[in-house]
Formats: sequence, structure tokens, C-alpha cells
Amino acid sequence: MSGVWGEYLKLSIFGESHGSGVGIVVNGLPAGIELDLDMIDKEMARRMPGKTRLATPRQEQDKYELVGGYFNGKTTGSPLCCMIWNRDQKSQDYEDIKGIVRPSHADFTARLKHSGCNDYRGGGHFSGRLTAPLVFVGAIAKQLLGMKGIVIGSHILSIGDVQEESFDLRNVGSEQLKELTEKEFPVIVEDIAAEMKKRILDAKQDEDSVGGVVETAVVQLPVGLGSPFFDSTESKIAHVLFSIPAVKGVEFGVGFEIAKMKGSEANDQFVLEENEIKTISNNNGGILGGITNGMPLVFRTAFKPTPSIGKVQRTVDIDKMEEVEISIKGRHDPCIVPRAVPVVEAAAALALLDLMIEKEGTGWMS
Amino acid sequence: MSGVWGEYLKLSIFGESHGSGVGIVVNGLPAGIELDLDMIDKEMARRMPGKTRLATPRQEQDKYELVGGYFNGKTTGSPLCCMIWNRDQKSQDYEDIKGIVRPSHADFTARLKHSGCNDYRGGGHFSGRLTAPLVFVGAIAKQLLGMKGIVIGSHILSIGDVQEESFDLRNVGSEQLKELTEKEFPVIVEDIAAEMKKRILDAKQDEDSVGGVVETAVVQLPVGLGSPFFDSTESKIAHVLFSIPAVKGVEFGVGFEIAKMKGSEANDQFVLEENEIKTISNNNGGILGGITNGMPLVFRTAFKPTPSIGKVQRTVDIDKMEEVEISIKGRHDPCIVPRAVPVVEAAAALALLDLMIEKEGTGWMS
Amino acid sequence: MSGVWGEYLKLSIFGESHGSGVGIVVNGLPAGIELDLDMIDKEMARRMPGKTRLATPRQEQDKYELVGGYFNGKTTGSPLCCMIWNRDQKSQDYEDIKGIVRPSHADFTARLKHSGCNDYRGGGHFSGRLTAPLVFVGAIAKQLLGMKGIVIGSHILSIGDVQEESFDLRNVGSEQLKELTEKEFPVIVEDIAAEMKKRILDAKQDEDSVGGVVETAVVQLPVGLGSPFFDSTESKIAHVLFSIPAVKGVEFGVGFEIAKMKGSEANDQFVLEENEIKTISNNNGGILGGITNGMPLVFRTAFKPTPSIGKVQRTVDIDKMEEVEISIKGRHDPCIVPRAVPVVEAAAALALLDLMIEKEGTGWMS
Amino acid sequence: MSGVWGEYLKLSIFGESHGSGVGIVVNGLPAGIELDLDMIDKEMARRMPGKTRLATPRQEQDKYELVGGYFNGKTTGSPLCCMIWNRDQKSQDYEDIKGIVRPSHADFTARLKHSGCNDYRGGGHFSGRLTAPLVFVGAIAKQLLGMKGIVIGSHILSIGDVQEESFDLRNVGSEQLKELTEKEFPVIVEDIAAEMKKRILDAKQDEDSVGGVVETAVVQLPVGLGSPFFDSTESKIAHVLFSIPAVKGVEFGVGFEIAKMKGSEANDQFVLEENEIKTISNNNGGILGGITNGMPLVFRTAFKPTPSIGKVQRTVDIDKMEEVEISIKGRHDPCIVPRAVPVVEAAAALALLDLMIEKEGTGWMS
Repeated sequence: MSGVWGEYLKLSIFGESHGSGVGIVVNGLPAGIELDLDMIDKEMARRMPGKTRLATPRQEQDKYELVGGYFNGKTTGSPLCCMIWNRDQKSQDYEDIKGIVRPSHADFTARLKHSGCNDYRGGGHFSGRLTAPLVFVGAIAKQLLGMKGIVIGSHILSIGDVQEESFDLRNVGSEQLKELTEKEFPVIVEDIAAEMKKRILDAKQDEDSVGGVVETAVVQLPVGLGSPFFDSTESKIAHVLFSIPAVKGVEFGVGFEIAKMKGSEANDQFVLEENEIKTISNNNGGILGGITNGMPLVFRTAFKPTPSIGKVQRTVDIDKMEEVEISIKGRHDPCIVPRAVPVVEAAAALALLDLMIEKEGTGWMS
Repeated sequence: MSGVWGEYLKLSIFGESHGSGVGIVVNGLPAGIELDLDMIDKEMARRMPGKTRLATPRQEQDKYELVGGYFNGKTTGSPLCCMIWNRDQKSQDYEDIKGIVRPSHADFTARLKHSGCNDYRGGGHFSGRLTAPLVFVGAIAKQLLGMKGIVIGSHILSIGDVQEESFDLRNVGSEQLKELTEKEFPVIVEDIAAEMKKRILDAKQDEDSVGGVVETAVVQLPVGLGSPFFDSTESKIAHVLFSIPAVKGVEFGVGFEIAKMKGSEANDQFVLEENEIKTISNNNGGILGGITNGMPLVFRTAFKPTPSIGKVQRTVDIDKMEEVEISIKGRHDPCIVPRAVPVVEAAAALALLDLMIEKEGTGWMS
Repeated sequence: MSGVWGEYLKLSIFGESHGSGVGIVVNGLPAGIELDLDMIDKEMARRMPGKTRLATPRQEQDKYELVGGYFNGKTTGSPLCCMIWNRDQKSQDYEDIKGIVRPSHADFTARLKHSGCNDYRGGGHFSGRLTAPLVFVGAIAKQLLGMKGIVIGSHILSIGDVQEESFDLRNVGSEQLKELTEKEFPVIVEDIAAEMKKRILDAKQDEDSVGGVVETAVVQLPVGLGSPFFDSTESKIAHVLFSIPAVKGVEFGVGFEIAKMKGSEANDQFVLEENEIKTISNNNGGILGGITNGMPLVFRTAFKPTPSIGKVQRTVDIDKMEEVEISIKGRHDPCIVPRAVPVVEAAAALALLDLMIEKEGTGWMS
Repeated sequence: MSGVWGEYLKLSIFGESHGSGVGIVVNGLPAGIELDLDMIDKEMARRMPGKTRLATPRQEQDKYELVGGYFNGKTTGSPLCCMIWNRDQKSQDYEDIKGIVRPSHADFTARLKHSGCNDYRGGGHFSGRLTAPLVFVGAIAKQLLGMKGIVIGSHILSIGDVQEESFDLRNVGSEQLKELTEKEFPVIVEDIAAEMKKRILDAKQDEDSVGGVVETAVVQLPVGLGSPFFDSTESKIAHVLFSIPAVKGVEFGVGFEIAKMKGSEANDQFVLEENEIKTISNNNGGILGGITNGMPLVFRTAFKPTPSIGKVQRTVDIDKMEEVEISIKGRHDPCIVPRAVPVVEAAAALALLDLMIEKEGTGWMS
């Protein structure tokens, strides 16, 4: 079923980009959690558009309203509903191209799946705007995981062909991750940030767009989250990641590189360090047999370039069934990757919190 | 929850590698399906060990018994249970190394997660043997998808550093896929097969192992399978794939390569061909906005090298909490990839059948 | 999990009686359904308070807003969210008795379950007001079932000790059910209505309340809805019914009476009528082996008296842990039964629609 | 979906009465539970046929085999599968009446739902034999609840028109419940047992059958199990109960009687007893707002008379579409109620364990 996700934590997402708003209902949070509203605001600001020249100038306010489940500063134990009202839509931008399916967007598939009844304005329910409620609830998940010392952080590994170094899979730590979270454009090597930004602005200049890869690490996870068939930690995280618009690849540890290795190179051999069992390397990215092993969990998420570009493209007017040309002039991100970072982290936080509740219940949260 | 998967088709998997057997219960199949037992046998034979020098010499018979849901040659509409009894286990092989966690295996995580109560013999519930029931039910899914003309096929894209060409993402067709399914070692360019096999035998010779990548295509899918949040076609397929032991990466279309592209390169522009809407390229691998668009669905799955190797490795004896060396002498596949091909296809078939039932119900099956 | 229900149709309910509003998200409706807004309004009006002296004088407007999933007069195929804003709350009524748990209400259990963090005003999430969104989505379910000719109707079988005749289990028909739906106080024998109303007004006069039983029939159901273990038609309907506040008993067909019968009396023998298979009697209430058999589905739902009464009662002030007396002076229904009728029907409609989608998919809806 | 139940504990049931066997897969049990096999045997013996003249003389052995999830005397944390092989079937008994649908059985509905492909022998998947695996896993649930001091017990409240006294809703205790569990024919007042048995033997003598009511109590439950919409404690228990063949009514506390009461009579007023909050009466049967309140949970389950009777009945031969007479001569229980007692308790234990895991996780089990 489309809009419902989770086993122990259950989310129900709804809304459209140009309707009255978007929102999410969260089941499974116990009573008594003091929501860290500042932290939620901060996370939502990371995703928010309109901040820099690198992103769309749309001024979405992303102010949320809690319609249930929150009382006197704490969760009530009943379903929590977060509404985010829409404000800065310009729906007429889309009326003109209603029959013209934008390449690489969901216009074509949404229209055929829903027999032409989908809300086509701004991508409707398929809009990246639906990631706003995800970041809201992801922030709560991060707060809760933080109570266990778990830290999630990411950097932009690549924009187009500009790539920086990967995390040190074995030794990435919470300090580095926290620092990255504070950065507006999170990279490890600052010099590369300028080059990446240049790629984005060049693409913007060319009325084009560019893709990139986000690398994420989660540290201080307990051993024992996840299962083999069918809810491996990889399965849980990848499931949510692949529902984020524009994601086309997900890999854990060294990922696709591991396929080129020999067992003697790839295997993470065990050693004792101060009476704790660690691995010498971390090619498996902190997961063995679908279960976290206590080493840093590291994964990479590939984003395609923003489909909306000003450059002329061929497409079809589906109402007239004739070929046309399209040049998309709206206010679009030339690169979605910087704003996608908190969304990726939200996805991981939600998947891990779901596994955490499976393992430890909810008693520790309040 | 570990062992249950699916929305419309619901699977419940169980069993251990060295217990009395493994099995699966399937809910959601309507009455009246004449199971194609020959096709099931063929699929299970593709996964079966003991066939060539490339694989483990274990002689698992993989004969299955249907304990419910099948009567007079047809499904009854009640839950279908497939039991596969174990026969050729040598459990004492494992007794000796009970406390010694094998690197890159689930021994360590299973033991900690399950407080030492897991069945450690041959990996227990974490064994690749659990993929046998998956292939059984995947064969049924393939048969049913075949009734709609849908064809699934794969080739071994790489073994270690030996790589062959990818599918033609836009034009891969059912004939090519069917031919690949007939091959014992499915590659497009036969010459490369020899080289790949050599890599495997070299690894075996060295008491080592090697990884690889499987590339899979599904053609003649209807437009409209899948959803955006949270059950995109990518999410559904990746969820099952990542529960297969040894999978560390999954990508769709051009996958991670798309992150290096500009929008003008990556976007799949639409054209009319004989009054049907097609895309000029297929970088998105047949999925837009989480929904199938009628173009070939193509994805790649990265497998790590078999963790069991004869080469000496460092590890820890968890009972004594001391470092030890280990050389794994059992009968192991030097490369899991050839036997993994039908497992990958089963995963895809199951995910797609689940989405198919969501879209079209089950009335068309019998 | 509390707030999510359904397999093929998935509901997520939220909100509190004295917060900003209540609502529901509906997943599983296909695109293109023209919602019958008049019929929805009518159903919601049946539940609405403030209409007669028999009910609470609270003026809830129950105006709903569709926040997603509805566009140009039709469902879009994306999640449908219905918000109902609160307006006529008098929260200070409850502040005074915050620590004093009202007998037979959820105050005590909600408080202990949620560690005192529940929204206690007006019952919060436990309020009967949560049935408003249920009636909204139940009206849609009724509309859809109606497309298959299925009709649901109910009468008030008893108020306190005043009881009227039961439906003719075998012959109850759609005309009778439709007529009952039009009645403000639905009974079969009008004379008894006056007596029932008198019981309610007497209870009101005495600052007391009274319970009752609703009997519901569903006709023109297809044969074949439901399953044996674990989703019998009885299980599905009873599950939703027992989540309605104040329901303490549910029975199908002749219900508890069947336990007193001999097999030769209870068995519904089969006959041929105009080449269709019917049963002579319908003691099983249209369900055999958990599956509908084409005869009228009939069930009864027992409601307890409204817990809120003016009469002095003993209770405990949980903050001070001391015994106190309480006389509840708010604006309460002296009998919940008349307003519960559309809620019971909504519950049945939702359970049956879920089973209908399992059997026939969603293709027939639009 | 038919055969899968549960949120935190997930069951998957399968098999047929006259196939090779029946079974169940249990997910959600943590590792390290030492199963009390004696207690399991005892529970299964309570359900077993062939013991007295009151029941069918069929000699089902009900010996179970654990196919996964159990190792060295403990659960492993992986799915537990229990197989119960069939032995004493006489399938030809049923071949003769294959087209003749037995009144009040599932023959008619199963056949139409499953297009004639159902296994019709002995009721197939619709047989009461499917309750054997339920009792198996119910015994485990009882054992686990017992670790928290929770005790479940039942008595036969009525057989036909012979009724004994109800439990004292407020004061029923664990000693009384344990005593009842030890009885072969559990009643509170021994004298009435003889009369009840006579009703059963009279029915048997007359080639007829008789129904009855089981009353069940659960004591020492914690406050706080269950939720309002949609998983009230009543909903959870009733859902499983109504999937047991022959159940037609379920009520909690005083049940349908509460509908006749005034609020001032029905409300369970709170008092302090040794600094604990109790209710003076327990008309709500230990549940308020869907949540357990710490008082005894009491419910009643109505069973219809065994449909299989020797007495001549009218029915239809569905193959020939002609009316026929039928006299069912197999070995059937003249009354299912005594053997149903452990099944009812298993249903309650499973529903309550699921809620218990939701509330407290699984850490306390091993």
C-alpha cells in the first residue's frame, strides 16, 4: 500500500504539493516524549528551499501544526499528526503544461496509473515536497536515537563528476558527523565544496541540472538490530530510501566495490580491542547477516539530476497524443542533493528506530 | 518482523540449514492455479548446489513437499506450505568451531542478537539454504507473471574484475532473457564466461572466494505498478533483494552512474512510436516516481565474495574471548553469484507479483 | 498498533476531542471515484450531536476538509485525508476534574497507560468524537458497496428494557433497510419508538443514562467474502465494532441463542430456489466458515449506557489518591445508541469493503 | 489476508484436515525461551479428540514436530514452525458426499469462494483440526503470560439450555482458574456437569448435537494493554475468537446485559483498596476505553451446535444442482464445547501476548 510504512513505528503520509498541504500521522510513539522543537525546526530548515542560490527560490515556510498526539509539550501516546500547509504555490505554472508529461518526472506514470485523475500541479503527491513531513518525523527519530547515543551524519560524496573522499568506514565518529550536520553544504574537504557548488551553478547557468551521491554514517548503534529474511537492516533502510524521489541506487559498506574483491580482501576479520570485539576493516558497513554488528553503519545513496530543466527536451502531449518540445521554466533546484541530505538521514533514522523498538520496546523513550 | 513479507502476497519463511528442514508458507494465491511443477523444478535446479566444480559439492536434494494449499494439481486458495527437508548436513563440521565466529558471516551478530541461543550449525536460519524456499515461491510468481507476458531474466555482469557488457537498457527483449535463463552460466558474450569461470576456479585453487554482480531485466511489465511513498517499485524489489545473504548494493537503470550525469543527459525524453509513448533512453530503468513506465525494468545486485574461505583469517573465539586463527575447510561455493541468479529473479518476481495483485487483483490468475 | 486498521483499505485515525481537530487518512482507494458528498453529509448528520432533545446539545459542526487525495471532484488515487476541525469545545469543563477519573470512562486507563500525558480534555483521543472521521470514510465505503447493489441498514433493537422485534433473518430486504436509514430514530415498529424515547428522556430527567442494542443487516452481498483463520467476516466486522467506544458485545445470526439450540434446529438447511442455492433459515447470519454465503448478513451490537451521568458516583482523585464523589454536569447524551447507528454501519461497511477489495480488486470502483 | 495474524507476534497457519498435516509458523518470539513441553502437551491433550464418550472417537495423535526456531531446548529467535501430521483420516468417508454441501458447514462457501478447488475432505482447511496448531502456540503464550503472573481459565457456562452460574466478575481469582484448567469437564458447580453431559449424550443418542457457551477469565493483567481505535483489547480478542469455527457471539463483562442497564447501575465506580484503585463492580469486564484496567478480564464465547448430525437434513448436491437428503454418519463430536475450551483460552492468550509485547517489548521473556 502506498502511503503507510513501518512495523513498530507506523507512518501514514498524505497531501499534495499544490493542494492545501501535506502531512503525516505517526503511530507507535509512547506518551511522555518531550519533542525537541528546536531540533525539528533545524532539521526542517536544512531541507527548506529558498535559502541560497544553489536551490529553488521558492519560499516554502514549512511551518508545521500538530493536530493530535501532542499536549502540554509532550507526546500523548495517541497518534501524532503533523500538518504542513502549502502557501507559495503558483499553480498556473502547471496548468499550461498539464497534458505535456515532463521527462524523468512522474507525470506520465502518475497519469496512467491514476487514469488522469492525479493532481498534476507541481507533481502533486509525487512532489519532493512530500519529503517535508518525512524530515519532521525523522527529526523525532533522530532525537530518540540520540537518547541512546546514536548519531547520524552525512556528507555530499559527489556532485556530478566532482567527488570527495569517502568516510573512513571503520573509524568515522560522532564528532565528525555532528560537525557535518552543522554545515550548510556538508563536505569533509572544504576545498571540494567550492568545486561542487560551481558544478551546480554551471548547470543552473546552462538551464541544466546535475546529480550526486550522499554518503551517510550511523555510529554507536547497538549490536543486534535487524534480521535475516525479510527485514534486514539493509532492507529496512533501502525501502525508505528508494521511496525518496530521484534515488536510483543504494549501497552499504564498500557497496558495489565488494563485488570486485576476493573473500580474503572483503572479509572483515575480528579482533579484540579492550575486550570488545571489533573488525579490522568495515567493508560490510556495520551489517552482517542483516544485523548491525556495532561497527559504523555506512551507506551511499545516488540521486539523479533534477528532472526539471530549462533546456529544450522532446516529449509528448498526452492529451493530443503528439510530440512536442518542452522547456521547463519554473523555480527549480539545479541540484537536489544538498537539500536531500536531511531526507536521507530521516529515512535512515526512521528505519533504525523501527528496528530499535522491535529490539527494545519503547520503555526507554520517556 | 523477521520472517514475514508482503502486502497482497504474504510469505512466512522458516527453518535452519542443519535442522530438519526449511520451508515457506504462501498466503494470497487464489484457488485454481495449476502449478507448473516442471518449471518449479527447473528453477530450483538452477539454485541447487553440487552441479559443477564452480559450486559446493554438497548434494542438497531440494525436493519439496507441499503440506497444504494444493489439491488435485491446483492451488486450493488456502495457505500453501512448501517444506524442503534437509539431508546432506554434516553438523559436526560446525561443532568444532562453535565459539569461533567466522568473519563476514552472521555468526557474530546472530549470536549476540539471540543471546547465544541461535542454531549455529551451518549458519542456521542465516544460511543461504533459506533461499531455496524463496526460489520455490519465486517460480510460482514467475509462472503467474508469465501469464501476463512478463519475462524476467538475468546475466552475470561481473565476477571479480571480469565484467561483460550491460543489457541494452532500452531494447532488452524477452527472447534474450529466455535464452539467458536456459544457460547454466548466463552471460551475454560467451567468451567472457570462460574468463569468469577461471576467476572462480582460481579463487577456489587459492582457498579464496570472489564476488560479482547480477544484472536483471523484466520486460513487458504494464505501466502503473508501484507507488511513491512508501512502496515504490524500487523499494519493493530492493527490500527483498537486500534480505538475500551477501547482497550489499542495488541500483536501477544506470544506477550510481546517473549521479554523474546532467539532467539533459539523464532525462529519458518521451517520443511516440506507433502511437505508443516510449522513452528514447532508459536511464531510469523503467521506473518513474516509483511506478513502472512500460520500458524494461533493469537493476543490478552486488554480491560479496563467499565469506567461507580456506585461507587463514584472524577472528575471535567468543566463548573464551580470545583471538584465534581460522581456516574454513567445509564444502563451500568459491563464488555464490551463479547460484544467486535464480534467487535474485525470485525476489524480483515476488515484489512485482505483490504490486500486480495490488493493481489488478487475483482474478486473472486462474 | 492503535490507530491503523485494514489490509487492502488502510485507515489511520488521529486527533482529540478538545485539540484542534480529528481526522483520518485513507489508503487504498483507486483514482477516479466521484465522492457522493451529499451522501457523506447525510451520514455525518446522522451521527451529529445537537439535533434533538435525545442527544447532547453540543453544536459540533463536523464540517470536514479534504487535505489530499481529492481533485476536481474525484479521488486521485493518493492517500485521502479528511480533517474535521473542533469548534464548540469548552475545555475548562474538564480542567476542574482533571485528576478525578470518571467511572466507566477511559480516564483511568488512558492516564495509566500514557503515564499521565494523555490529553484528558473531553476524553481526548478516547472521545466518541473520533467516530466522526470513521463515519466519513464509512460513507465512502457504503457508496462503493452500493455500486455492487449491497445495502446496509440498522434499527434500534432495544433501549434499556424496551425491545422491538428482530429482523426477519432470512428475508430482510434492501427496501426495509433503506427506509430505516431515512428515519431519525430507526425502528421497525413505530409505536415502540415512543417508548424507547421515553426511556431516554426519563434517564435524562433522572440525571442518568441508558444503554441499548443496534441490529444491522447487510443484503445482496456476494458469496465468498472472508476467510477461515484469521480473517473471518465475523472477525473483520467485530474488530472494528469493538473499537467503537461503549461496545461490549457482538453477535451474528441468532448469536448467543444458537448456543441453546440443537444442531437439527440451528443448521441452515439448503434448498434450491429458482436454481439458486438458499438456506431455509438463516441462524448463521449469512456467514459459514467465516465466509459470506449470500444470505443476509445480520449482527447485533450491544452498547453500554453513556458513562457520563449527573447522578453522584464514587470515584478516586488520582492526583491526591483519595476517594471523592463526582456528579458529571457536562452536555452529554443520555443514550448514545441513536447516534451510534451510523457508526456501526460505517464499521461494517469498512470491514466488508476491505474483504471486497481482497476478492475483487479495485477495478470496479471507478 | 486469511492465514496470517498478529502485529508483534505474527502467526501463519496452514494445512488441511485430510492432507499430510497442519501447522503454524510463529514470528516474534525472542531467543532463549525454554518451552514448557509438558504444559504444551497438556494443553493439546485438552483439545484432543477420542478421550471420552462425549467426543468424537477419532484418534488424532496431535504429536507435533518443531521444524525451526527451537534448538537445545530453547527458542532460537528465528521463526518457530510447528508441524502436526495427520494420521487417522478416513478420506473415503467424504468422497461419497463430495458434491453434497453439509448444512451449517463451510462446504458451500469454501466451494464457491475457491471455485471448487478447495480440499473438501473433512472440511479441509476449514476443519476444526486447524485449532490444534492454535492451541500449540496458545500454550506458549500462556507460559509467557504466566511469567508475569497472568492466569487464564474458563468454565463451560452452558450446554444447550443447562446453564451454571457466571464467574464473580469482580473477584474471580487465579486459584479458581487453575482448578478449572485441571478439570476434564470444567464447571464451577459439579452437579451441573452431570446435567450438561447428559444433554450431550442425549443429543448423541438422537443423532443430533448441541451448542454452548464458554466463559473465560484472565486475572492479574497489568493496567494498560490495548488501545482505543482500532486495537482495543476487545477487538484483538474477538478477532481471534471469531476465526474459531462455530463461534457466533462474543461479549465482555456483563456483555449484552449491559445494554439493559442504566448508567448508574452499569458504571464501575472507583474505590481505593489498600492504596490501589479498584472498581466496586466489574460490569466492563476489566476493559475501559479498549484498555485493561487491572480488574479481571471476563468474556463469553457462544458456540453453535456441531453441524455434523446423523439426523436427516435437506441440502443440495451442488454438482447436479438438485435437492437431496443427507444423514452425516462420520465420527463427530455431539458437542464441540468441551474441546473448544483450550482453543478459546489460546485465542485470548495470543491476543493478550501481542498487546503485552506492544507494551513491554520481549526483553522479559528470557
